[in-house]
Amino acid sequence: MTEAPRDPFGWLDEAADRRRDAGLVRTLRPRDAVSPLLDLAGNDYLGLSRHPEVTAAAAAAAHRWGAGATGSRLVTGSTALHAELEAELARFCGVESALVLSSGYAANLAAVTALTGDGSLVVSDAANHASLIDGCRLSRARTAVVPHADPDAVRQALAGHAGRAMAVTDSVFSVDGDAAPLSGLSAACRAHGAALLIDDAHGFGVLGEGGRGAPYAAGLAGAADTVVTVTLSKSLGSQGGAVLGPARVIEHLVNTARTFIFDTGLAPAATAAALAALRLLRREPDRARRVRTVAAGLYAGLTDAGLDAARPDAAVVSVRAPSASAAVRWAADCRAEGILTGCFRPPSVPDGVSRLRLTARADLTDADVTHTLKAITRTAPGARTQQR
Amino acid sequence: MTEAPRDPFGWLDEAADRRRDAGLVRTLRPRDAVSPLLDLAGNDYLGLSRHPEVTAAAAAAAHRWGAGATGSRLVTGSTALHAELEAELARFCGVESALVLSSGYAANLAAVTALTGDGSLVVSDAANHASLIDGCRLSRARTAVVPHADPDAVRQALAGHAGRAMAVTDSVFSVDGDAAPLSGLSAACRAHGAALLIDDAHGFGVLGEGGRGAPYAAGLAGAADTVVTVTLSKSLGSQGGAVLGPARVIEHLVNTARTFIFDTGLAPAATAAALAALRLLRREPDRARRVRTVAAGLYAGLTDAGLDAARPDAAVVSVRAPSASAAVRWAADCRAEGILTGCFRPPSVPDGVSRLRLTARADLTDADVTHTLKAITRTAPGARTQQR
Repeated sequence: MTEAPRDPFGWLDEAADRRRDAGLVRTLRPRDAVSPLLDLAGNDYLGLSRHPEVTAAAAAAAHRWGAGATGSRLVTGSTALHAELEAELARFCGVESALVLSSGYAANLAAVTALTGDGSLVVSDAANHASLIDGCRLSRARTAVVPHADPDAVRQALAGHAGRAMAVTDSVFSVDGDAAPLSGLSAACRAHGAALLIDDAHGFGVLGEGGRGAPYAAGLAGAADTVVTVTLSKSLGSQGGAVLGPARVIEHLVNTARTFIFDTGLAPAATAAALAALRLLRREPDRARRVRTVAAGLYAGLTDAGLDAARPDAAVVSVRAPSASAAVRWAADCRAEGILTGCFRPPSVPDGVSRLRLTARADLTDADVTHTLKAITRTAPGARTQQR
Repeated sequence: MTEAPRDPFGWLDEAADRRRDAGLVRTLRPRDAVSPLLDLAGNDYLGLSRHPEVTAAAAAAAHRWGAGATGSRLVTGSTALHAELEAELARFCGVESALVLSSGYAANLAAVTALTGDGSLVVSDAANHASLIDGCRLSRARTAVVPHADPDAVRQALAGHAGRAMAVTDSVFSVDGDAAPLSGLSAACRAHGAALLIDDAHGFGVLGEGGRGAPYAAGLAGAADTVVTVTLSKSLGSQGGAVLGPARVIEHLVNTARTFIFDTGLAPAATAAALAALRLLRREPDRARRVRTVAAGLYAGLTDAGLDAARPDAAVVSVRAPSASAAVRWAADCRAEGILTGCFRPPSVPDGVSRLRLTARADLTDADVTHTLKAITRTAPGARTQQR
């Protein structure tokens, strides 16, 4: 075949033009180590990322173990630090076994793909995180997407399926901060003999006794039919992810999960930081309560001001904006007032409803909350009625 | 539907039994910080993971920036460190732009999915890494798997396809250590107007002038139709991955790649360690040459001893074993002699041919090489003829 050379990436310019026309261009905005802004955008829920014990543990591990794990967890990438973190995570969450991966994304891909497969059915909440959705796509299972937070829909989707089945759900949904009906979902799964996979990225460290997470709070910790994923990059202030569950599930992942086998192990510094943060949380369980108190305070203040905020079930407080461009402007105005907020718009919000996303942190003071509320209400595009 | 509750994970026990019967059970073997073993299994090719400048940079970054990036790169997860690393990686490799992700796996998923899509054709080498294969599966593109290292097969697969197309290949294949015919692949792509994506995980830091990588060595650095992925966890001794290419490609990834957008940014310590390692490599370019010399020495010694080794094109030297169980025993015998080797067997080796995998390192001495060769030949299951 002879053909004149073409520009194989010409279509990217058209895609960029469409983004520009729609006002949806994203740009990276690197931050400095010290910022004058009050951060209500990050996911450092317990304020542990910069805790001196956590950063000292990271630094000591880099010196002692080196900057990288040097290989797959199955070759040279498993250190005693990884084993210690896995044992303490499992004990803390009340499960048999835990497995640490290099990200929460990798943990979700591992759990969904390794626990389903050809002939399986996966029942997936319509608002699930991208990593769960990609796990479904990667698995060779049939995926049934069901309406958000609807155990009856899960029950119906499972009905009539004869082979293996698993329902997958976030415990706390990242955008609106609402919790999944875990007890109802578990009952629906059990009625059918299906497994339940819960991504507790936004519940771990915040919900349940001392931050043991949403599955723990729902009485599902250690259940033989339940698997949980967590991140080490939110409440534990570090990087990485983990799968928690029955020992046979973890053993299966070690042997078959591609994002575990074919990835370099988590760096020693990140592993040690997560371990130090977990020990801090065990010693100071009130951090979990404090972040919920801060979230409740933010919600009350926003609602009192007539803004359309979603009642937070954990640390995330979402406030609707009338449009994507209004949300961007609102976030910029907040920034000018010294408050850093998240700004969610398509394609990050699948339903097309743009909003500011505030994250409560355990180390925010009451004065911080007051200051935040003032800035957000003062810059709001207009008072709205309550969302739910 | 009413049905008695079943055990949703009962099938895992059967899968475990099958693994046990086949002698293919993998178990994690956590290592200590200080080991009496000589490591020829890890991917720390340049010996930089424990270099004091690299570990000091990781430690300083943890103290200064915190243990985690605290959010997505698009929210709070981009620090000045990330921007610095991206600029220096791009300059070093001779490309317009670079984007750092939390792993090489995530970088490959990002590049394949964001640069293809519905109606596209992806032409994928049969021996490609799991992360490229998963990228193909996740993309909505049609995937044509072609015979290993075969530009004519790529040409044929592209012929007749009218829409967008991209060929994807490892630059150096992880298991056998052989290099892809990049010039031929590029010519095949250009004849058709297709893009070329090169995973340089095992070439970066080892091949090309001063370790600039296999695409640089092939004259493809900075090409408008070529995209490269690298890991920060091999030659740079840290953790993470990056995509390198034209600015419009990187901008497109920032805006659309799910494993970039919906993942927490790489931890500051890992980012700083990779940056320090890159600067060391620039200052000490001979490290790249040294690792190739060590690999050549290992190959020569193994071949002289009558073992079936594959000629290394970079740092990886592969030696065939007669069976999976013989490979496991051989690796165990080497360990007893103080040498840590990789042992590849199904499902890690897609072709079912089990082998030991040795990785050369720039910081191995000639005495280390001699000691390694003695141990491996002394424990070999039997002398064999040369593989290629």
